[in-house]
Amino acid sequence: MAPRPNVAEKCIEQILDAAMVVFAQASFQEASMDEIAREAGLSKGAIYLYFNSKDALIGSILDRLFSVELDALKELQTAPGSVSDRLMALDRQVADDMIRMTPVFPILYEFYAEAARKESVRQVLKGYYDAYHERLVELLRQGVESAEFRAVNVHDVASAILAIYEGLALLWTVDPEKTTWGETNQTAIRLLVNGLRTESN
Amino acid sequence: MAPRPNVAEKCIEQILDAAMVVFAQASFQEASMDEIAREAGLSKGAIYLYFNSKDALIGSILDRLFSVELDALKELQTAPGSVSDRLMALDRQVADDMIRMTPVFPILYEFYAEAARKESVRQVLKGYYDAYHERLVELLRQGVESAEFRAVNVHDVASAILAIYEGLALLWTVDPEKTTWGETNQTAIRLLVNGLRTESN
Repeated sequence: MAPRPNVAEKCIEQILDAAMVVFAQASFQEASMDEIAREAGLSKGAIYLYFNSKDALIGSILDRLFSVELDALKELQTAPGSVSDRLMALDRQVADDMIRMTPVFPILYEFYAEAARKESVRQVLKGYYDAYHERLVELLRQGVESAEFRAVNVHDVASAILAIYEGLALLWTVDPEKTTWGETNQTAIRLLVNGLRTESN
Repeated sequence: MAPRPNVAEKCIEQILDAAMVVFAQASFQEASMDEIAREAGLSKGAIYLYFNSKDALIGSILDRLFSVELDALKELQTAPGSVSDRLMALDRQVADDMIRMTPVFPILYEFYAEAARKESVRQVLKGYYDAYHERLVELLRQGVESAEFRAVNVHDVASAILAIYEGLALLWTVDPEKTTWGETNQTAIRLLVNGLRTESN
């Protein structure tokens, strides 16, 4: 028989999918490993084979959520086109990802609540934001150096872009009808890009 | 003796202050009315005199937090000056309020997590955002009508402004050193205002 090296990988995906379903309905404290096993159609032992604890599972879910965006942003560093064009391309990508990620927003907000209270959780979240922020700064710097953008504080602008996405995700959660992903975020980012551009560009 | 009509009001303030201290450290589920009474230096009976339940307390805290911003925004509708100037004035006010409100951010995030899961909680939050959004739309419309601003979708721009504040609050919670209230938000709102202005303004 041929070796099957990706059985573990498949199993992990299956567990993470199940955990996301369970955490979307119940808080971290309420949700049990039993429920996650049931949802995954696996034994609890099988889950503990890959994840030591509920915290480890939550960590993997967050990693999965944040990695998609980080990878997209990394590719944009070296993609062709003006920085404005690439920021708008990122914007379309984020909108698509957000729609896909909606069912797990409760998990994110619970994690934010934990982060506001606990330094250890805050550090995990900070790691992701730092990476995202750093890549945005790098992209914006390209725009300033090529004189496409005015000499702005790229750190603050990167924070503003991150804030727009985080904030819109919240508004969208609260009132999906008022905030339309794909339109509202495009207006916001386009205005910001307009404000960034030099007169000649 | 002179009548003291504001004893109840003072007592309510005292209870809300205490509840905010307790909720900032423990989750809604963990925090008890006993602890809140202890922190307030009152009997549990005195607390139940003004608040039927923990939920009623949480509701009053949120009302307190959101009302400050809503009142500030209402005043700006009829304040003198260009809309750009008034948006920047609002920005300074929000920055000051956010710094003052930092200790209660955990309460807000826990509430957002609840809102992502429960329709009833979502409706409460939606009420505040609707009011805030409506007043921003009104202010932006003044800018478009006087030709100070380009003919933008004022609903989307209002959402963008709300998103910037909500998102920066989150980034600030996660990494207070990277995001400086008063600078980062000023850069963001100034860029947005720049993007809004017509060529002639």
